[in-house]
Formats: sequence, C-alpha cells, structure tokens
Amino acid sequence: MIQSEPANNLFLKACRREEVDRTPVWFMRQAGRYLPEYRAIRAKADFLTLCKTPDLAAEVTVQPVDLIGVDAAIIFSDILVVPEAMGMQLVVEEGKGGPRFPSPVRSKSDIDKLSVQNACSSLGYVFDAIRLARKRLNNKVPLIGFAGAPWTIASYMVEGRNPRDFRHIKELIYSNPHEAHALLDKLSTVVTSYLSAQIEAGAQAIQIFDTWGGVLGQEEFEEFSLRYIHRIISSVKRNNAPIIVFCKNCGHSLEKIANSGADVVGLDWTTDIGKAREMVGSFVALQGNLDPTILFSTPERIESGVKTVLKKFGKGNGHIFNLGHGILPETPVENVKTFVNAVKKFSTAFH
Amino acid sequence: MIQSEPANNLFLKACRREEVDRTPVWFMRQAGRYLPEYRAIRAKADFLTLCKTPDLAAEVTVQPVDLIGVDAAIIFSDILVVPEAMGMQLVVEEGKGGPRFPSPVRSKSDIDKLSVQNACSSLGYVFDAIRLARKRLNNKVPLIGFAGAPWTIASYMVEGRNPRDFRHIKELIYSNPHEAHALLDKLSTVVTSYLSAQIEAGAQAIQIFDTWGGVLGQEEFEEFSLRYIHRIISSVKRNNAPIIVFCKNCGHSLEKIANSGADVVGLDWTTDIGKAREMVGSFVALQGNLDPTILFSTPERIESGVKTVLKKFGKGNGHIFNLGHGILPETPVENVKTFVNAVKKFSTAFH
Repeated sequence: MIQSEPANNLFLKACRREEVDRTPVWFMRQAGRYLPEYRAIRAKADFLTLCKTPDLAAEVTVQPVDLIGVDAAIIFSDILVVPEAMGMQLVVEEGKGGPRFPSPVRSKSDIDKLSVQNACSSLGYVFDAIRLARKRLNNKVPLIGFAGAPWTIASYMVEGRNPRDFRHIKELIYSNPHEAHALLDKLSTVVTSYLSAQIEAGAQAIQIFDTWGGVLGQEEFEEFSLRYIHRIISSVKRNNAPIIVFCKNCGHSLEKIANSGADVVGLDWTTDIGKAREMVGSFVALQGNLDPTILFSTPERIESGVKTVLKKFGKGNGHIFNLGHGILPETPVENVKTFVNAVKKFSTAFH
Repeated sequence: MIQSEPANNLFLKACRREEVDRTPVWFMRQAGRYLPEYRAIRAKADFLTLCKTPDLAAEVTVQPVDLIGVDAAIIFSDILVVPEAMGMQLVVEEGKGGPRFPSPVRSKSDIDKLSVQNACSSLGYVFDAIRLARKRLNNKVPLIGFAGAPWTIASYMVEGRNPRDFRHIKELIYSNPHEAHALLDKLSTVVTSYLSAQIEAGAQAIQIFDTWGGVLGQEEFEEFSLRYIHRIISSVKRNNAPIIVFCKNCGHSLEKIANSGADVVGLDWTTDIGKAREMVGSFVALQGNLDPTILFSTPERIESGVKTVLKKFGKGNGHIFNLGHGILPETPVENVKTFVNAVKKFSTAFH
C-alpha cells in the first residue's frame, strides 16, 4: 500500500514531533460501547464475531472519526485474538466478566503446544479489516494498528481470565523463569509478525498495550516485559509507521520505556506529563493523559481537566492528547464530544 | 494502659530508626485465611462475627505470632467496620466478591446522614479485642492497630463494593469536590478518634492503609487522600505509638507521603526500597516490600527475594520487613515460614 500522508496528518506529525497548529486527539477504546452506533452493531453480532467480520470491524473503527471528530482511527479488535490464533480457545460471554480461556497455560507442555508459525495466517480477518477501514477512511485521518505487549497477553493466557491477583503468572516467573521466557519469546515472535503485517495491510502507526506492566517490580518489569517490547520494536518492519508504547502504572520506568525505541510513550494519569516531558520529551513524543473518569463530570470540569494537561505539557510539539486509559462504556457521548472539542479549541494556544 | 516496651521490641525500635541486631518482620493480613488455624475458627464464625467477637478476634490476632514467629501482631479487623459504625449497612457474604454496601453513598443527603459523634462508641468490640489481644500477647511482641485512609474507605462507601473502575467516587470528586471533601472530612474525624481510642486501648503502633490512593492523579492524591492522612496524623493522640502510612501504587508521591508526619512509610513492591531510602530514609523508617506472590514460588526463590530487598535497603536501621501488599489466602504456610525465617537469618548481616 502506498503510504501517502492523510488529509488530517496532525497525529502522524505529532508522533514525529513535527510542528502542528493544534494538538491531535484520539482515545483508547474510542470504537466502543459508549457510542449508541456501536451498540447498534453489537446488537446484531457478538464481540468476537464483530472482531472477525472485517466489514463490521471496519465500520465501528470509522465511527468515532465521523461521530466524535478524533484525529486518528484505531482498528477495532482485541489483544486476545493473538493467543487464540496461537491455538487457545477464547470465550467471550456477555456480562460474564470479560474474555476468558477455559484451558489456561499452566505447564511447559501448554507452552510447547502454542503455535507460532501459523498464528499470523489465522489473523487474516484483522488485516482485511485494516484494508477495509483504510478504504473507508479514504485517507481522511490515519489508522492505528495495535497489539498487546507479550507480558500483558501472557497474563491473560496464564490466569485464564481478566487477572486480579496475578498469582499464576507470577508463580511462573518466580518459580520457572525459563518457561516464562519461553512463553514470552513465542509471543514476541508472533506479535512482531502480527504488527508488521498490520503495517503492511495499511496501519499507519501502531500501539503496543502493556496494561499489566505495572503489577511487576521494576526489575521484573524490565526482565519480563520491557525487554520483549524492545525486541518487538527493533524487529517490526515499520515502513515509516511510528510506534507508540503504553505501559500502565509504569511511571517508575519512564526513561527506560522511552529508550525502548518507541517514537511515542503513552502515559496514564498518574504520571505528571510535564515532568515526563522534562525527562524524555527531547527524544520521544508523549501521548495522554486525562483520567477517563473525568468524562463522568461536568463540561466545565472536563474543559479544566483538558487545560491542565495542555498546560503541564506546555508549548511546543510532540504531544498527542488521549485518555490515560480506555474510555469506560457508560461514558456519556456528549461529554466525550466536549472533551475532544476542548482539546481542539484550547490547544491552539500551545502551538 | 502502661506502655512498657515488649520483650521483643525490634519492631518498635525499627519504627524509631534505633539500632537493632536484625530486621523485624510482620506482614499485612498475617491473621488470615492462609493459616489452617484461622480457617478452623472461621468455620465456626462468619467474617463479621469474627470481627465483632473480641475473644475470637484476639485469638486470630495472636496466631501468627505463635505459629509463624512474626515480630508484631496486628489486630484482626476490617477497614469497613468504620462506615458501618457511621450508619451504613455492611454485608459480607462468603465467596460473593468481598464486602459490599447495598445502599452506597451517592448523594449529599447520604453524606449528611453519616454519623460522626457516635461512630466510635459502636466500635467498642475493636477496643475490647485490642485489650484482650494485649493480655494474650503478654507483652511478647507489640500490637499494631489500624484504619483505612479516608480516601480508601470512601471509595468502598461510594462504589458500594470492592471498587473496579472507581467511576462513582471519581464522579464525586470531579463533579462535586465540595461534597467529596464533606465526606472525607467526616471520615477523617472518625478515623482520628478511632485510632486514638485504639492506642488508648493498647495498640502500640498504628497503620493507615490507603489501598486505593494509587488510582488518583498526583494532584488529586494530594487533595483527596494525603491531605486527610496528614490531618489524622497531626490529631491522633499518639502516646508514643509510631504511625505507619501505606499508600499502594503511590511511589510518585513518596516524598510527600514521608512528609505527612508518619514515622514509617510502607512500600509496595513497585517502588525500589533502595532508592526510597536515599530519598526519605533520613527522616522516616521504611516498611516493605516483597511481592506477596513470590510466596507461591520455591524456598530458594523466596530466600533470594528476601536477600534482594535486604541488599537494596542496605546496612543500617529503620527497616521493617513486610510484603508489599496483603498475603494471598492460597499462600502455602510452609513458604510463609520460609519467608519469615529468611528475614531473621539473612538480616543480621545488615546490622
């Protein structure tokens, strides 16, 4: 696919820390349940069917661009399609506490069984969805691809469900670090091919989500998570697509994350974006970092929250506005629009 | 009660950063389900009955001293007895996702209704349990009292259950900060009296648990959590009882926490205890910080984990060994003993 710059290239420019006339904005889970138009489609198809039907996945991907006015789209999918493609049974039942793996990874033979070679070929529906979404976006805004960080995916695979105490995955790293590394190594290989193929299919940037990096001590984070993120970044065939790394609750390792080779570092709301810019802003762009729950408050409070983040980052380039974590499903749409419009309105003064 | 120093005064000395010949050790939730002897008592009484029956509460309080050999006891109770004493209905059902409040605090009138004046008089069973536990401990090791930080208690009261996304309490602080402060103010008043009365009844140190401080941005943490911890500390009638403050996932605000007036700062395992000592070790003692899930691994790994924490803190005084969070119920007792013995054995080299 020819990589011509989209009509609205604020997001890509900000990733490269180039000059822009306002701060671009998108947000995690922007194609999601807070949108009535998304819920209308979900009424016709369950979550995994939606992920695996390129036409529908592309449709919900484009929704927030048209409806909310974000400056980038992110392909609708789930980080857990990767372990499914590696051979695990993935079950998503409505209202039953999120996706789960009925047979979690708990032994060396479970790890050995995981397929690496054929994983990407089972994920063709994602690449098809990317191609379709690119077509429908018509180069209006860029399209972001994504994958989970190996540590985060492994946490789900070993716990078997949305992890709470991380007892099993931690038991694995503490008792059998060699096996843990074998698992993370396999995941890194698949994620590398998967992200490269997403870029090949048309993703113009990619984000690596390490939702669970923050449950590790600092040394364990480096050994079991960041090391693999680093390896993926150095191997992904970029074709100029910038790479965003988002590790939740990992403010303690900001400098190391910024040195992973990422172009952009995503911040949750517990890191001060002003201090983060001082530390690493000379060599990476920063993405974030409004607390998503602020979107349950008043228009005035949302606007003042946006202004606070803008002021903390300060004047200049290399800032992509985002929430500090995924938007919550119950968020009122009007407040989401207030948020996006506030970024557009108030950020011009900082450029 | 006459405050004579216990026979084993390592813990109190370490709180005061005095010289000791080894590092004292206790751990959060040490009177708990991992112990068969605790489960035997729980088979006869449900959780709240156990909390409210001084004889039984005192019995499980003393168990880990005799069975595991910890250097301090902590009174068996729950942080949520405070809102119950303020008038809320508290329900704890076995295996149903933890304690909950069927009628959570959601409005100004809910806040207005909360009783402050009479709360402490409803908590007599805690003070009785403290008196009984002191008697049974016979001044062998000191007894720690505790309370939740106002922010953490308020999170449960407003969410109505173990909080996940903190949507309602965050909506309160962002939309109605004035009401949020009214709630936190009431809680601070009650917690202050409650802790003072625990000390009066015989608690020789107290710990304030801010389990949920880490879900706030840094400024919100200061405004809605730390400010109240600070106020409580300055008002508690100490009678020489040291105060420990434990704010989970708040490494970003370590210096501010250390300046709260606390004698000891508790650390979770995501903060490097060596760096923490450099920053604040000259004026507070530090408590922590082994990852509790390491207790699911091998004796060798547990010992090396203990040694790593000891080495990071380094030679000298002002360290109380603990886990970085509460012990998990499924933890094997043998591993807990390995952990405690490892601290006792390996820490002598650091004194």
